[in-house]
Amino acid sequence: MNKITRPSEMQTPEVTTGPIIGSKKIYDSPEGYPDIRVPLREIELHESSGEPPFRLYDTSGPYTETDFKVDVEKGLPRHREAWVKERGGIETYQGRDTKPEDNGNATGQYLARDFPNKQQPMRGLDGEMVTQFEFARAGIITKEMRYIAHRENSGRAEKLARARAALADGESFGAALPEHVTPEFVRDEVARGRAVIPANINHAELEPQIIGRNFLVKINANIGNSAVTSSVEEEVEKMVWATRWGADNVMDLSTGRNIHNTREWILRNSPVPIGTVPIYQALEKVDGDPDKLDWEVYKDTLIEQCEQGVDYFTIHAGVRLAYVPLTAHRVTGIVSRGGAIMAKWCLSRHKESFLYERFDEICDIMRRYDVTFSLGDGLRPGCIADANDRAQFAELETLGELAQIAWDKGCQVMIEGPGHVPMHKIKVNMDKQLKECGEAPFYTLGPLTTDIAPGYDHITSGIGAAMIGWFGTAMLCYVTPKEHLGLPNRDDVKYGVITYKIAAHAADLAKGHPGAQLRDDALSRARFEFRWEDQFNLGLDPDTARSMHDETLPKDAHKVAHFCSMCGPKFCSMKITQDVRDYTATLNEKQAGMDEMSAKFNEMGGKVYVEADKVAKAANKDLG
Amino acid sequence: MNKITRPSEMQTPEVTTGPIIGSKKIYDSPEGYPDIRVPLREIELHESSGEPPFRLYDTSGPYTETDFKVDVEKGLPRHREAWVKERGGIETYQGRDTKPEDNGNATGQYLARDFPNKQQPMRGLDGEMVTQFEFARAGIITKEMRYIAHRENSGRAEKLARARAALADGESFGAALPEHVTPEFVRDEVARGRAVIPANINHAELEPQIIGRNFLVKINANIGNSAVTSSVEEEVEKMVWATRWGADNVMDLSTGRNIHNTREWILRNSPVPIGTVPIYQALEKVDGDPDKLDWEVYKDTLIEQCEQGVDYFTIHAGVRLAYVPLTAHRVTGIVSRGGAIMAKWCLSRHKESFLYERFDEICDIMRRYDVTFSLGDGLRPGCIADANDRAQFAELETLGELAQIAWDKGCQVMIEGPGHVPMHKIKVNMDKQLKECGEAPFYTLGPLTTDIAPGYDHITSGIGAAMIGWFGTAMLCYVTPKEHLGLPNRDDVKYGVITYKIAAHAADLAKGHPGAQLRDDALSRARFEFRWEDQFNLGLDPDTARSMHDETLPKDAHKVAHFCSMCGPKFCSMKITQDVRDYTATLNEKQAGMDEMSAKFNEMGGKVYVEADKVAKAANKDLG
Repeated sequence: MNKITRPSEMQTPEVTTGPIIGSKKIYDSPEGYPDIRVPLREIELHESSGEPPFRLYDTSGPYTETDFKVDVEKGLPRHREAWVKERGGIETYQGRDTKPEDNGNATGQYLARDFPNKQQPMRGLDGEMVTQFEFARAGIITKEMRYIAHRENSGRAEKLARARAALADGESFGAALPEHVTPEFVRDEVARGRAVIPANINHAELEPQIIGRNFLVKINANIGNSAVTSSVEEEVEKMVWATRWGADNVMDLSTGRNIHNTREWILRNSPVPIGTVPIYQALEKVDGDPDKLDWEVYKDTLIEQCEQGVDYFTIHAGVRLAYVPLTAHRVTGIVSRGGAIMAKWCLSRHKESFLYERFDEICDIMRRYDVTFSLGDGLRPGCIADANDRAQFAELETLGELAQIAWDKGCQVMIEGPGHVPMHKIKVNMDKQLKECGEAPFYTLGPLTTDIAPGYDHITSGIGAAMIGWFGTAMLCYVTPKEHLGLPNRDDVKYGVITYKIAAHAADLAKGHPGAQLRDDALSRARFEFRWEDQFNLGLDPDTARSMHDETLPKDAHKVAHFCSMCGPKFCSMKITQDVRDYTATLNEKQAGMDEMSAKFNEMGGKVYVEADKVAKAANKDLG
Repeated sequence: MNKITRPSEMQTPEVTTGPIIGSKKIYDSPEGYPDIRVPLREIELHESSGEPPFRLYDTSGPYTETDFKVDVEKGLPRHREAWVKERGGIETYQGRDTKPEDNGNATGQYLARDFPNKQQPMRGLDGEMVTQFEFARAGIITKEMRYIAHRENSGRAEKLARARAALADGESFGAALPEHVTPEFVRDEVARGRAVIPANINHAELEPQIIGRNFLVKINANIGNSAVTSSVEEEVEKMVWATRWGADNVMDLSTGRNIHNTREWILRNSPVPIGTVPIYQALEKVDGDPDKLDWEVYKDTLIEQCEQGVDYFTIHAGVRLAYVPLTAHRVTGIVSRGGAIMAKWCLSRHKESFLYERFDEICDIMRRYDVTFSLGDGLRPGCIADANDRAQFAELETLGELAQIAWDKGCQVMIEGPGHVPMHKIKVNMDKQLKECGEAPFYTLGPLTTDIAPGYDHITSGIGAAMIGWFGTAMLCYVTPKEHLGLPNRDDVKYGVITYKIAAHAADLAKGHPGAQLRDDALSRARFEFRWEDQFNLGLDPDTARSMHDETLPKDAHKVAHFCSMCGPKFCSMKITQDVRDYTATLNEKQAGMDEMSAKFNEMGGKVYVEADKVAKAANKDLG
């Protein structure tokens, strides 16, 4: 990490490829739509299970196919281009030229190599529909919406038999999860502004995905180099690596030089939506001095990134001049970089934020490419002491006002949220966001539930993320163990992603998502039956589970052994349970004997065996 | 881990000693009680902070003293013996001889060396008070209670100025946290049965500690060898290592041979309460066959462990015959080892559990030594699908009935809880426990909020632990990354402990514990002011935080640099915040100018500076 290679010496990024062990990448199409190929990951279970292969939602792109020929210099196939073009209303045009300042005026050995296979950009024509939101409001179901419906159902054509029971069992706090996701449901949620499909028309490599509280909770992984460390190669691999383990979205938060070129390499090779914070690059263009920022440089940056294909922009348009002084007495002031930049700008000039004042124009630009707004929380709290203060909530109210404008302009919108919030103050964030922002999807960072564990903030925040995901947050921005300490490396990215997959899944379970518990149940059955390989493979990280098991019991024979290192071979509670089960089954068979037993045991706690049968039936719900 | 040393070759256990980097171990006494020496950890802050050293609750025993001469062969000093003796009502007697079956009939090279400095046991006399509960009910404040009051206040003699505000700010769900913990408050909580002080009169090495929902949330770390792996030396070091990082209690869950000798080494060197599950050892004494268990072997095991000084026993007396068939249709049946043993016993004999039937006698034995009950949840769910089922709750109701009996007998009681529970089903566990068990302290394992992440169950369970801790659980039993996969090693133990310290602290914050946020605030101030060393040292794991920081910016100079690797030296949001602060301060000074500004900005969002001042005052609460 300490040695910095010259950017000009950049090699072809090496990315991780091949299937996750125990899994096979497959594609499945909804009936009648062979050009909609929804990626899934299939896990073959041991024959003793008597279960079909288990299908999982998959974010990893073609990289996990067995035979995919990766060519990072060329980029991923641009399947979605046809869908955009067949809808019409767009033009292909000669885009903006790359300028020296796009890469921080890096030259010679400091300039990272340009991506060699660039495409001409497309943009919407005046008066034509471009965004998923516009199509949705017009009652039109796009290919992306059909794709997403099939994807959200993990390829299932019919609703689960257990769907209603699962929904009734959960607590969704007023969300309206369906028993089965239809293309029309997707359209309707997008039209209501309750969900977004981040999908720039120029990001044709994208596998579409939806963010909304009536769908599976999504996660975002941040990557990006800084002025101090990291290279283009590392960032491309971080993107591939993060999506391999389940990142639904990736934000490129690069600063310093080579921002433009780094982003191009990432976008052309990314199967997931890429988000950015355009003000970061705009700031680089004015030598890092917020006072020098103006609308022209910002607007130019927006167009630059729209043409490249960025799918969503964090825009801190809610940091209004009036709110800045509200942060002065905070323990940690303004911790959002975008928020701090805009605060500085506002204060230095004694002027209202140009992002706020030019918001209409920003909408007009973003609409032409269908770039989704991620309205940034520039005044989010940076510590427990500052949570839920007036500065934070004043900004949230403004974000609600801006969401309405964006919708009126035909744009898709999500709202960013904190930050650092103790557990008892999390729900009010969600409730206020729903109320102020017309149910636009909430996209939160953590929140971190305590400040006392630098090095473990994936965990302090994973707690808050699971909770706020349950309460209704649509996307959780991951936090890695390096938060507050340094830039995440590959291992940190994986820790962050896995932790947030846990949080998102725990939230799906608690909301009563009809399909969520299928995986828990499949893994639990494997655990109970000592199908060790199935247990590893059904988990979020088969490699780690397997290697932990092998630390104690490395021999292959142990993976089919009916015991584990916790109890050893002589005694095993799982085995005893099987005895209990066999015993009860025997009893059930011998009805006559059972009645006799029942009479005999009445004195010891009610009608034992009769009750057991009733309870068992109630407990053993249809598992779909 | 794979090589197993012959037990007879056992060396003197090597344990980790010396202060945690950046900290100094100190002792502080409440006024008038020089023999009550409460351990604290003091962190010296950088002089630029203008803050006094920060004091932390400390569980690590004398091992973290700078000059302590560790002698593991001799054991820790037995300071508490004098307190027990001065209260009277006890006798020292010739204890039970160690029998071959106590160590699983291990002989020769298989027998672990006996602890060389054994003590004669003490026990209570008939009709005399022995337990903390008996003294509390009689209105007597013991030395342990005074010690605990001072310890819970982290040595503060007076209540915090911010205490009332902190309490009002939190949500404690009906707990009654005090503004300041007095010895009388401790006594009262123990007398009500709402808190326990696990403190066997024979564990004189103990630094007393309280478990109850109106005190700091505590955590328990499980250690113990199994038939397959681990040695006495490893287990002693795991105990020292776990308490170094904050384990308030340790359970020795050893199985296989050498249980007796392993436990003696642990107890004599442990500053924290040690818990066990006596049925594990009883089972070893009958060659691992549950059918051969009987009251005599169990009773003998109880006395053996009472004499050694075990502080709390998990007793699965709620696994009644009538409940066993309720588990037959579960996905994972009975996953508690103790539960499975008792279920097997009940079914094989068609008899009610002898633990249930002999509960009175068990109380009489445990009372004589003041061993606290930890009524085990032998029917806890082992997966999401089985959460909150009838088997689980039937047992919980029985535990409530047994708690009442134990109190009537003069014993201290806590209640164990699940297990695997999705987020939306956690609170009902807490509410039902409080209702059924008369507010006896709840002691939960996790709960794990999803089953899909083997290798990361410290996190799946840390989420549930933080939540249930907030709702009222008094002690959280840790889960390590190895859960379901293997026995935890040293690193796993640390991960588990740190994760659970996070959960416990997040819970304390959410409950509004008056002192909890002090640490978050101190660390946040250090973070804001770029006091890197202070930030590391105030965290739960200074070593890890420091090494993560140094991966990117290893030079010492960087630790005082006013930037970090996330943004680099050119731009820094924290620095901009300081500018905002300076700017606002300047404005505040110039009152005249401010009024003018205020008028000027009225159009842009209300009376900006006036409002800011008000809000700032409200936000900037007294930080104690």
